[in-house]
Amino acid sequence: MKKVVKFGGSSLASARQFKKVADIIKSDKSRRYVVPSAPGKRSDKDEKVTDLLYACYDAVAEGRSYKKILEKIKSRYMDIIDGLDLNLNLDHEFDRIEENFLAKAGRDYAASRGEYLNGIVAANFLGFEFVDAAEVIFFDENGNFESEHTNRELSERLEHVEKAVIPGFYGSKPDGTIKTFSRGGSDVTGSIVAKAIHADMYENWTDVSGVLVTDPRIVENPEVIETITYKELRELSYMGASVLHEDAIFPVRKEGIPINIRNTNRPEDKGTLIVESTCRKPRYTITGIAGKKGFCSINIEKAMMNAEVGFGRKVLSVFEQYGISFEHMPSGIDTMTVYVHQSEFEEFEQSVIAGIHRAVEPDTVELESDLALIAVVGRGMRSTRGTAGRIFSALAHARVNVKMIDQGSSEWNIIIGVENDDFETAIRAIYDIFVTTEL
Amino acid sequence: MKKVVKFGGSSLASARQFKKVADIIKSDKSRRYVVPSAPGKRSDKDEKVTDLLYACYDAVAEGRSYKKILEKIKSRYMDIIDGLDLNLNLDHEFDRIEENFLAKAGRDYAASRGEYLNGIVAANFLGFEFVDAAEVIFFDENGNFESEHTNRELSERLEHVEKAVIPGFYGSKPDGTIKTFSRGGSDVTGSIVAKAIHADMYENWTDVSGVLVTDPRIVENPEVIETITYKELRELSYMGASVLHEDAIFPVRKEGIPINIRNTNRPEDKGTLIVESTCRKPRYTITGIAGKKGFCSINIEKAMMNAEVGFGRKVLSVFEQYGISFEHMPSGIDTMTVYVHQSEFEEFEQSVIAGIHRAVEPDTVELESDLALIAVVGRGMRSTRGTAGRIFSALAHARVNVKMIDQGSSEWNIIIGVENDDFETAIRAIYDIFVTTEL
Repeated sequence: MKKVVKFGGSSLASARQFKKVADIIKSDKSRRYVVPSAPGKRSDKDEKVTDLLYACYDAVAEGRSYKKILEKIKSRYMDIIDGLDLNLNLDHEFDRIEENFLAKAGRDYAASRGEYLNGIVAANFLGFEFVDAAEVIFFDENGNFESEHTNRELSERLEHVEKAVIPGFYGSKPDGTIKTFSRGGSDVTGSIVAKAIHADMYENWTDVSGVLVTDPRIVENPEVIETITYKELRELSYMGASVLHEDAIFPVRKEGIPINIRNTNRPEDKGTLIVESTCRKPRYTITGIAGKKGFCSINIEKAMMNAEVGFGRKVLSVFEQYGISFEHMPSGIDTMTVYVHQSEFEEFEQSVIAGIHRAVEPDTVELESDLALIAVVGRGMRSTRGTAGRIFSALAHARVNVKMIDQGSSEWNIIIGVENDDFETAIRAIYDIFVTTEL
Repeated sequence: MKKVVKFGGSSLASARQFKKVADIIKSDKSRRYVVPSAPGKRSDKDEKVTDLLYACYDAVAEGRSYKKILEKIKSRYMDIIDGLDLNLNLDHEFDRIEENFLAKAGRDYAASRGEYLNGIVAANFLGFEFVDAAEVIFFDENGNFESEHTNRELSERLEHVEKAVIPGFYGSKPDGTIKTFSRGGSDVTGSIVAKAIHADMYENWTDVSGVLVTDPRIVENPEVIETITYKELRELSYMGASVLHEDAIFPVRKEGIPINIRNTNRPEDKGTLIVESTCRKPRYTITGIAGKKGFCSINIEKAMMNAEVGFGRKVLSVFEQYGISFEHMPSGIDTMTVYVHQSEFEEFEQSVIAGIHRAVEPDTVELESDLALIAVVGRGMRSTRGTAGRIFSALAHARVNVKMIDQGSSEWNIIIGVENDDFETAIRAIYDIFVTTEL
């Protein structure tokens, strides 16, 4: 058994948290490859080391005084080292970092030092080998991640390493300069390592006990999802549920390696298991509910539209011309509606309408803004008749006006359009009918 | 007040029916312009005069004996004339028809004689002026209806005619040859006449007491719709409800002239009023239910599809390339499905799939066939929350598996996809929940 364990910033923010992490790793011998983030916030008002590094580098680059920020960063690591009673001195590392900052090594280099240093501390504390991500994670000269190259080098490098710490978030370009993934990218590193060593499991340790059925800002203490498929997670993430870095899913998904979201502060919780597919019956008919505000709809009417081959294609071409991606396109007989992100659309509103008029000569074009989309996702919906009935009865009962329904691309996903103002009410109503009433 | 009254074939199939028609016309002085069809069936096993005319002409054209069929046609009119005690002799007309058949005047000419002769009989019986449609309804040399030309000539011709009979179904091309509308085209003639004379009402008399809420072959004795908007009717017609010839709606719709569908055999029934818009509350939340079998769905999955601008457009282009119009396109996050007519799609099935692979490199493409689409239509749905909940609860209760839901282009229309086998059950369940339970 081989497991890759990635720990988020809050799991490694202090010596106290480091000790929890070490306990977790030592309690299971298969936890052999550790991917750390940079130290995160210790409290709500604290700062993340990554943010301090960016600020420090910007000060250097703009010729402002930076020593104070650098000291702050240093002291974060010293606190951890002292708290863990380690025999470790980072002075030499910090000298080199300062030199490289002054030599303009780049913001990516600056940001990556948070993970780099935390990796050194973690390796020392755990007694694992430290493997610098710059030597095993590769980007091309344009900054695109090189999947095959990385996989080959990483497999070879770790083949004979029993236990290792590989810092998250960054890698290197052919000329040796450091390049990071986008923010939260340690999730991606963990997934890449899991793929390279053919891990049996990729554990992603964070500060929540798994993926929640819905947004805790809308529903108080929502239930945790026990098992979710990659597809379900992708849909919930797309619709606003923030769990993992989006790019973290693909490397392990291709290899069929499950991801387990765990809580460093409550290691006894089983967390959420993310899998390619599963026979496990979900606990509720629905797996999750997510949604986003800020959409608008463009409703196009034209008599006998349905007889015109090419009508839909022509309309979509107009949106494409302005680089606007459409979210949904419900259609009636002689009407079609295109749902788009309001923020993407607003700038080109009038041009798009004019373009539609030129392209298909509609009878009318009407806009409606301030709409929200809600995705109700669940593999259990497929085998449970009446799910749609329950959803729409619950929404009617909650006095929510349903503007749009789109189900059909998969039988385990219903997309519902409501007004922005009804968004929270709608999510609570759906949560209650499927979860609260079944507790 | 000016009304155009169109009578269908069964309303003019016999002397007995002619008398009912005359009573109807005489009971309302505003019924001044009459558009007759050709005599239809007098009983289930009877033949329509139009079919006899086609058969007779085909026999002439192929050099077969035709006299017997011609006699049969003649006797249909003689029975009516005798039954009405008219002083009218059609021998001369029939001689000319025979001559023209032998001179290959065309199948359209042949078919049109049913209305032509019936118009002469009706004008004689009613004491109205006979206006040959060939002189007032115009097509161009390619056989396309000339709307403006017709409207001008028809208005002028009828301006000083108090009461007239204008046979339905046909008109003439610039060279004087006869051209018909497609089958059922007398509905279109009535609508064109109503537009030209600025009628207050276009009455369309037939053998049913109006538009039914749903198909009587599926639900026994469905209720009659009191008032329906053009849009609602168009949607129901498109989805299989056969009421009026499709092209009959546009001329009057543009002028805001309502259509009243009436029953010649039950003139006391108010029938169905078809209007541009109305404040009248519909009797039930839904106005009507219609549907069609024989669709199939093409489900396309691709990870991160939603991030690709132009994805939907490219997929639709492939269908367009093969001349296939799509009916609906529900979409999830990384999935989209295209619903098409199975009959249009089958021939090109493999080419379309290959085309989609080339165009967008999907992860998977899956087909599902033998699907039916059902449209639940009703302007009352807009103001009645919970309609969707009632529909889907009813379908769940009837154990119907809902494959697709599309609502959003208008709030008064929900399209539902089910398996062909569930089609009738689904329609009955929806009818029952909205109509039967409210009776």
